[in-house]
Amino acid sequence: MMRESFSPLSKAMLGRLARLGQKKHRDGEGLFLAEGLRTVSELLQSLPDPSMLHALVLDENAAGQFDGLKRFAGKVWLAGPDEFKRLAQTTSPQGVVAAFRKPESGEFRPAARSFVVALDDVQDPGNVGTIIRTAAWFGAEAVICGRGTADPFNAKTVRSTAGSIFALRIIDAPDLAGALKRLQADGFAVAAAALDGCDYRDFPAWPARRVLVIGNEANGISVDVLALANRRLLIPHAGTRPAVESLNASVSAGILMAGMAMDNG
Amino acid sequence: MMRESFSPLSKAMLGRLARLGQKKHRDGEGLFLAEGLRTVSELLQSLPDPSMLHALVLDENAAGQFDGLKRFAGKVWLAGPDEFKRLAQTTSPQGVVAAFRKPESGEFRPAARSFVVALDDVQDPGNVGTIIRTAAWFGAEAVICGRGTADPFNAKTVRSTAGSIFALRIIDAPDLAGALKRLQADGFAVAAAALDGCDYRDFPAWPARRVLVIGNEANGISVDVLALANRRLLIPHAGTRPAVESLNASVSAGILMAGMAMDNG
Repeated sequence: MMRESFSPLSKAMLGRLARLGQKKHRDGEGLFLAEGLRTVSELLQSLPDPSMLHALVLDENAAGQFDGLKRFAGKVWLAGPDEFKRLAQTTSPQGVVAAFRKPESGEFRPAARSFVVALDDVQDPGNVGTIIRTAAWFGAEAVICGRGTADPFNAKTVRSTAGSIFALRIIDAPDLAGALKRLQADGFAVAAAALDGCDYRDFPAWPARRVLVIGNEANGISVDVLALANRRLLIPHAGTRPAVESLNASVSAGILMAGMAMDNG
Repeated sequence: MMRESFSPLSKAMLGRLARLGQKKHRDGEGLFLAEGLRTVSELLQSLPDPSMLHALVLDENAAGQFDGLKRFAGKVWLAGPDEFKRLAQTTSPQGVVAAFRKPESGEFRPAARSFVVALDDVQDPGNVGTIIRTAAWFGAEAVICGRGTADPFNAKTVRSTAGSIFALRIIDAPDLAGALKRLQADGFAVAAAALDGCDYRDFPAWPARRVLVIGNEANGISVDVLALANRRLLIPHAGTRPAVESLNASVSAGILMAGMAMDNG
């Protein structure tokens, strides 16, 4: 596709895209922004359908670096530094910003074998994005976001997902305890990372349906969610007392997912 | 300790501390900076010796939030917003910046049972800090930093270590392959995370001395280091093809450490 066929970004379109920096506009329009050559390329590669791209905004330099833009005809725009400054939520957008459609979140019908991850007030966007990425690696069907959890569709989270956001269901659940109870009714075992739990390696086999809950970075899992957990999991530290207070939330999520997703139960 | 006993930060001291934002000055002075109430508190709690604190700079508000400053008499300074702006390397320093002595890195004499982590060109400070934190949790004796690895003592890395930087040895090794060969001569098995490796769960037992090498975020482990590895470890993904290209470096490090550090071999 020739560069000449890209239209310059209109003022109206710039304003509409810039507003996607706010959650209420992302929710209202059903769109989200991604920034940077790497993040946008990863998302384009994993795009379930070309219609999920809403707009791709490139500067002159970046326009030469993308191949296969033909399938996005009419959705690619050219912009300059001032426009990128308005669009960028994170650091330097490297002349690449894209708006994607948020995937539909209709009713969740889990498979007979299903692994799900739930986030209970996980506040750091980097943690939320990294946990989504890890969940995709381990074949999770869905990530459920409870109250207080960073928006999975903000630009910083999206960057940390490394293009995995279309690989699984993202489910918004303000009432996380209620959502987990419904999963339990469907045969899911609920596992919660907790400091008073048992060594996670002592649970070698899991039911075919299982959900792992990860809690807030400072305060862990909320009382009502902990109360309904079928298993409380602890990652033991070395020595008689730990050399550091805790593990990072996405690291402990990764260790527990590796144990839960890959068992042969 | 009364607030009145803190001296205002001198211009000379401000300049000296601000210079610690650069690695050459950190190396030259043997000092590093930490920022923010949480990070500085974590470091003060894990301080091996009060003499390891070089200077603690607080604003009026933060000065009221610290207890137990008596043991640091003569090292606590008061400063205002303009001075914090000069000192801060990361985001808002919340009126708390401290300079600590870098721990001595004399000869490394590993214990009979020893777990070590090596970083081969791990470039993201957040990853380096998180890996140090995880290594401390799993009782690693040392983290060896090969060429290209983000400085463990820059403010962003220090924040990610969550106060664990004094819990283990930090060893600088520009020639990482050479350092690993010396460990092998001392009976260490070298394990490397690699995409062409074997499932890490197939190695249930490890020699008493073991080192895990984590590679660059985009390119993995360098050829010369991979060539000398005794075992190449892979974290399998779910399904026939992965839903995302890779795991985050600190997440895969955490999963492999959990396997290697906690086996009973």
